[in-house]
Amino acid sequence: MTWKISSEARQMDQLLNEESLYFTGNGYIGVRGNFEEGYAEGSSTIRGTYLNAFHDIEDISYGEKLYAFPEKVQKLVNIIDAQTTLIYVGEGAEEERFSLFEGEVLDYTRTLHLDQGFTERSVHWRSPLGKEIKVTFKRLVSFTEKELFIQQVTIEPISFTGKVRMTSYVDGDVTNYVNQNDPRVASGHGKHLSVSQIEQDGEVAYVECKTERSELSCGCATVYHLSASARRTDKASDSAFKSEFHFVLNETVKFEKKTVFVDTLRHQKEPSLQQAAQDLHKRFSGIGFSALLEQQQAYLKEYWRNTDLEVEGEESIQEGVRFNLYHLLQSTGRDRFSNISAKGLSGEGYEGHYFWDTEIYMFPVFLLTNPELAKNLLLYRYSILEQAKERAKEMGHQKGALFPWRTISGTECSSFFPAGTAQYHISADIAYSYIQYDAVTQDREFMEKYGAEVLFETARLWMDTGHFYQGQFRLDAVTGPDEYTCVVNNNYYTNAMAKHNLKGAVLAYQRLQEETPHVLEGLKKRLAMQEDEVEGWQQAYKNMYLPYDAELNINPQDDSFLQKDIWDIENTPKEHFPLLLHYHPLTLYRYQVCKQADTVLAHFLLEDEQELDVIKSSYEYYEKVTTHDSSLSSCVFSIMASKIGEQEKAYRYFNETVRLDLDNTHGNTKDGLHMANMGGTWLAIVFGFAQLRIKEAGISLAPTLPNSWKGYAIPLQYQGRRLRLQVDGKGVDLQLLEGEKLEVHLYGEKVELSPQAPNSTRALGGRQ
Amino acid sequence: MTWKISSEARQMDQLLNEESLYFTGNGYIGVRGNFEEGYAEGSSTIRGTYLNAFHDIEDISYGEKLYAFPEKVQKLVNIIDAQTTLIYVGEGAEEERFSLFEGEVLDYTRTLHLDQGFTERSVHWRSPLGKEIKVTFKRLVSFTEKELFIQQVTIEPISFTGKVRMTSYVDGDVTNYVNQNDPRVASGHGKHLSVSQIEQDGEVAYVECKTERSELSCGCATVYHLSASARRTDKASDSAFKSEFHFVLNETVKFEKKTVFVDTLRHQKEPSLQQAAQDLHKRFSGIGFSALLEQQQAYLKEYWRNTDLEVEGEESIQEGVRFNLYHLLQSTGRDRFSNISAKGLSGEGYEGHYFWDTEIYMFPVFLLTNPELAKNLLLYRYSILEQAKERAKEMGHQKGALFPWRTISGTECSSFFPAGTAQYHISADIAYSYIQYDAVTQDREFMEKYGAEVLFETARLWMDTGHFYQGQFRLDAVTGPDEYTCVVNNNYYTNAMAKHNLKGAVLAYQRLQEETPHVLEGLKKRLAMQEDEVEGWQQAYKNMYLPYDAELNINPQDDSFLQKDIWDIENTPKEHFPLLLHYHPLTLYRYQVCKQADTVLAHFLLEDEQELDVIKSSYEYYEKVTTHDSSLSSCVFSIMASKIGEQEKAYRYFNETVRLDLDNTHGNTKDGLHMANMGGTWLAIVFGFAQLRIKEAGISLAPTLPNSWKGYAIPLQYQGRRLRLQVDGKGVDLQLLEGEKLEVHLYGEKVELSPQAPNSTRALGGRQ
Repeated sequence: MTWKISSEARQMDQLLNEESLYFTGNGYIGVRGNFEEGYAEGSSTIRGTYLNAFHDIEDISYGEKLYAFPEKVQKLVNIIDAQTTLIYVGEGAEEERFSLFEGEVLDYTRTLHLDQGFTERSVHWRSPLGKEIKVTFKRLVSFTEKELFIQQVTIEPISFTGKVRMTSYVDGDVTNYVNQNDPRVASGHGKHLSVSQIEQDGEVAYVECKTERSELSCGCATVYHLSASARRTDKASDSAFKSEFHFVLNETVKFEKKTVFVDTLRHQKEPSLQQAAQDLHKRFSGIGFSALLEQQQAYLKEYWRNTDLEVEGEESIQEGVRFNLYHLLQSTGRDRFSNISAKGLSGEGYEGHYFWDTEIYMFPVFLLTNPELAKNLLLYRYSILEQAKERAKEMGHQKGALFPWRTISGTECSSFFPAGTAQYHISADIAYSYIQYDAVTQDREFMEKYGAEVLFETARLWMDTGHFYQGQFRLDAVTGPDEYTCVVNNNYYTNAMAKHNLKGAVLAYQRLQEETPHVLEGLKKRLAMQEDEVEGWQQAYKNMYLPYDAELNINPQDDSFLQKDIWDIENTPKEHFPLLLHYHPLTLYRYQVCKQADTVLAHFLLEDEQELDVIKSSYEYYEKVTTHDSSLSSCVFSIMASKIGEQEKAYRYFNETVRLDLDNTHGNTKDGLHMANMGGTWLAIVFGFAQLRIKEAGISLAPTLPNSWKGYAIPLQYQGRRLRLQVDGKGVDLQLLEGEKLEVHLYGEKVELSPQAPNSTRALGGRQ
Repeated sequence: MTWKISSEARQMDQLLNEESLYFTGNGYIGVRGNFEEGYAEGSSTIRGTYLNAFHDIEDISYGEKLYAFPEKVQKLVNIIDAQTTLIYVGEGAEEERFSLFEGEVLDYTRTLHLDQGFTERSVHWRSPLGKEIKVTFKRLVSFTEKELFIQQVTIEPISFTGKVRMTSYVDGDVTNYVNQNDPRVASGHGKHLSVSQIEQDGEVAYVECKTERSELSCGCATVYHLSASARRTDKASDSAFKSEFHFVLNETVKFEKKTVFVDTLRHQKEPSLQQAAQDLHKRFSGIGFSALLEQQQAYLKEYWRNTDLEVEGEESIQEGVRFNLYHLLQSTGRDRFSNISAKGLSGEGYEGHYFWDTEIYMFPVFLLTNPELAKNLLLYRYSILEQAKERAKEMGHQKGALFPWRTISGTECSSFFPAGTAQYHISADIAYSYIQYDAVTQDREFMEKYGAEVLFETARLWMDTGHFYQGQFRLDAVTGPDEYTCVVNNNYYTNAMAKHNLKGAVLAYQRLQEETPHVLEGLKKRLAMQEDEVEGWQQAYKNMYLPYDAELNINPQDDSFLQKDIWDIENTPKEHFPLLLHYHPLTLYRYQVCKQADTVLAHFLLEDEQELDVIKSSYEYYEKVTTHDSSLSSCVFSIMASKIGEQEKAYRYFNETVRLDLDNTHGNTKDGLHMANMGGTWLAIVFGFAQLRIKEAGISLAPTLPNSWKGYAIPLQYQGRRLRLQVDGKGVDLQLLEGEKLEVHLYGEKVELSPQAPNSTRALGGRQ
């Protein structure tokens, strides 16, 4: 059962959320779970198909535009819609359109098959005039053929036999969803695509659209296959291609619609985008739903071997964990143009932008399970390094790279700098992920070609941002992860991460100097590095100021945080959450109140910066002032609760992450899935319950077992090895599945795993 | 000579600036100094006519709109243009249009007559074909009849006699000036008016326009008078009324165009706006330019008696001082709808919005010279008190009034809150002006009806904004006057002004309690005041935290200012000023760098809060980090240089104010005059050189004399008296001109002036 996510009832009020939950994607294509057969007039739906990174450009309007405010925003575009297939049963005056909004739904199930990689919607329907049929819709976006989206409609006669008419569309008349009043959704206007070409070539119905401003085009080419003999008519309008099929239903009929998407970012193939689409159709010719399903299953078998995190004892948790890991896979870009947007490919929230969410919340999942996917995420950042350097210049820096807070193609798209550009920490977050990648993969070539440069350029940013004051290196006027406190001095998170960034750059420099001095020389020349720059980085990180309050024995979030009034969370009306939708930023800035983990997150990422008692007191302090209005918060509190031995809390916070979208606990799943939180679920288990840490010296583990679980098992890849951690009532078993011998720390104790002695077991809590 | 401002040469690159410098206005109407006869194709001009407070509404767009961000902005509208009168000389193929851009300008003078209240432009012109004429344009906006604008064109034949054709327009096809990249000028679009009515009734050509969104209408009714007999034709298009006059020029001809402006804010008269305009024309019938000029002179005689600040020894200074005082008069609203916008009625910079500039920089001028004008400015604020209370609620406050940072009709129009709404000090600034008004006028009735309520509601704001911390009352997350440092904790200026506000509210409360308890009871009931509220105000002001740094012996601008790096002003390229046009706000926030006086201003307004040595050290400290990028800065530095005995500096800073617009030293006079700076000139003399202070205990003076001056004289009104301060090489003479005896402090010493002994003289510096 836990390989299936199902909705048994047709819950009309859940339709919008289910469009996100049942989206199908492969990192390139994303198709929301909209109904093929359409909706009742006036019902709410956000119909969407997206190609990762395929965007338009809009001007940003400002009432008062100041220097270096971004002028343009990129925006994920809702592209050509190939989802629609209407079904009409009966003839003449008795013809009726199949619809969940009319007649009677006798049975309904929607299922997402996590192990097979498709969604399925079965409806047993009785029409208003009494015609009974069963209709099953399956859809699959191929993990192995990135351009391919296939839909299968099966119609089974129950009480009704007779004439059936199906009209299927490829529609270029599409718009984006806008909401002027929710800063988490796009504002602006919705029309970004116009049809530039529409024609039929043989079997293939082709629609091509171009964006309004970004000079990108995408094409959609569709072919049909029907198991019954039918009369077909095709008709192109200005914006849509309509194919109609007339046939007689007297036994089960299968209808397949195979669609290929192409776009000018990826398919520059001569002579045309249309040719590229046609070539692909040729390649896929003869491959139908069942063949693709087989490929899909094979792909997922490997994915789950690498990634599946088994939880024993709580079905709903297992369901949530797998659901989240599946959607991460569906949303992760695999080429240099794309990354993982905040909502993945499931919706338009946050305009399809890539944030620090990737590096801190999602990248680690892949790093330790599917390192090739992780590598691509870093390559994407490298591909926008030049723009980050440009942005640093715009922002008044002499040197360095300031990565954009939100972007698709590399330029800053944040129009509210206090909670956008001011979050300088994103540059350190990216550096952190490069350092982690280095530690986990030991991919020297990657570090030489890309990693060192990113570390050097981000280190330079900190040198140019900070300054020495009374012997300490300080960073003023930045915003940490917590967006309820903006533009502050010496945000603990930022300072600690910048320190790590600077140190990482120094270490990378020293290693290059030792191992491949010619590479270093080339790099120094290319980056016009001064001889004393590295010395400066060293001085800065060694003297980095990390705020500490002796009285409370905690790290203050920033220089002034503790002097503010404390927000009365308890007596704030429930309907006033999330606070950002009910209070002006200035009101929030005036209080000790956090949207999300900030210092607590720093204590997770860089636990060696502080003694455990400071980490503990800080946790307790910040827990009281945090609303978790951000979906990026709970997983971090779970991880750190595990660390400080607060097992119940760890489990409670974990529970807030694991089914956040499945249960729509944040109320906005309709705008798309909370991808960072989905990664956070994995983090809360692996870094939380299992207390895995990746450090220069290697990895360490100190597993715990939530009370309500019987056990759990985690597959890991590390430095070319495959490992499996099994935790249950009997104890902890860490096993080397593949690869050479390895030293790890288990409950603080060094243990060696080798092909000869692959297992290391301990009692829970470390007793041998 | 010093009653005239003249441009002798036609400096084409100065045209835009001169449009501001030679604007004519009366607090209701403002007409930029555009050329009647038009411009060459492609030459730059900002053609404008404005009615104070007559505005349209635009939506504000935000890339990311957060809670309580203002949704609409008001915008001063460029209204119906009655400036144009084209002149054609000659006939048939030899007809030539009079233009400064063709032919030869043999002589050119433009003059503003400060004592007579009109502008004059004389041109001796030779046409390309050699026709020579002299044309003089005079324009006058009446100080006594607020709706009236009259233009007179005199044409004198020199070498040319013959046919002349004049076409004169009343044009409703007007747009506003926009610039998307300068935050000091309106962004958005320019078209706000459409013509709703255009017709001729008898002599009167009438054009009525309505705004796009604000549901306001304005009308413009024009009549003509020509001294020569002429053939006249009239023609109305969709948007303009054109009257053409054909006559023969063989002696000097005078042409008068008399225009009346009305609008629905002020002229609600039944049955129509047109009727109101016609009634006005009836009233003014028979009154021509020369009669109006007489009225104007009489009005100005009285104005200058009250206001003229005589400077002996430097012509250019005298010119600047009078010029500034004249333009203040031209720009000051006299009704409850209007105030003084940042650019007065001279241009569209800052969209015609009213700022704190009024209370701190301009109100004091009128308070001590023309108290009735000052009173109206306060009444305007009272008229928007309800909106300020609404705004406080929106901003999350339980009680109190938060006045808008920028507005016309009362709602917040600032779209960048860190340098807008966050400037909470505006509420204290307004309170300050009420307290000053009370001290100078002793107008008890005013305080009972308006003043006490304003003080109470602003006091409430501080109670709800601040909090006690370690026994001190603190204000977090506000912005002081200096916009290069935003959203800080405990801005000295704000805290000090809030303290003054709270104390003023307590004193007003206590006085009402003693003198008119029934008034207080009524007010308490109406404002639902708690019994303990006043106690709270008292606690707060008595424990108000005012930052002080013992090591530097200065008041830090805010809690974190001194910990930041110091901006290297000296080595910043000259073309990078003003910094706000060349650096992102975050860059500026990261440094100790001030756009304008902040703590130094607080030390002027509330000098008793600190010992003189702290004021001195602070002055020296802030002087080094201030760019004076704001035109509100130099006058304050001048005042405080006088206070601390830095006479040369005082004079240098004063010099930066006195001809700022005349010499266009800020480079943007084209967008309108810098009204606050114009007030600042007066302040720098009266509060600076003469060291006048208004306190509860009365006024005090300690005059100094700039080295390069022979002397100066200041007329003052105070508590019903008229005073005159005369300072020259012989010493200081303070004279009671009218009114009862009065005690003042002269050089710290109490002196009594009485009708019997009206003079008090001292040597300069106070030696008797």
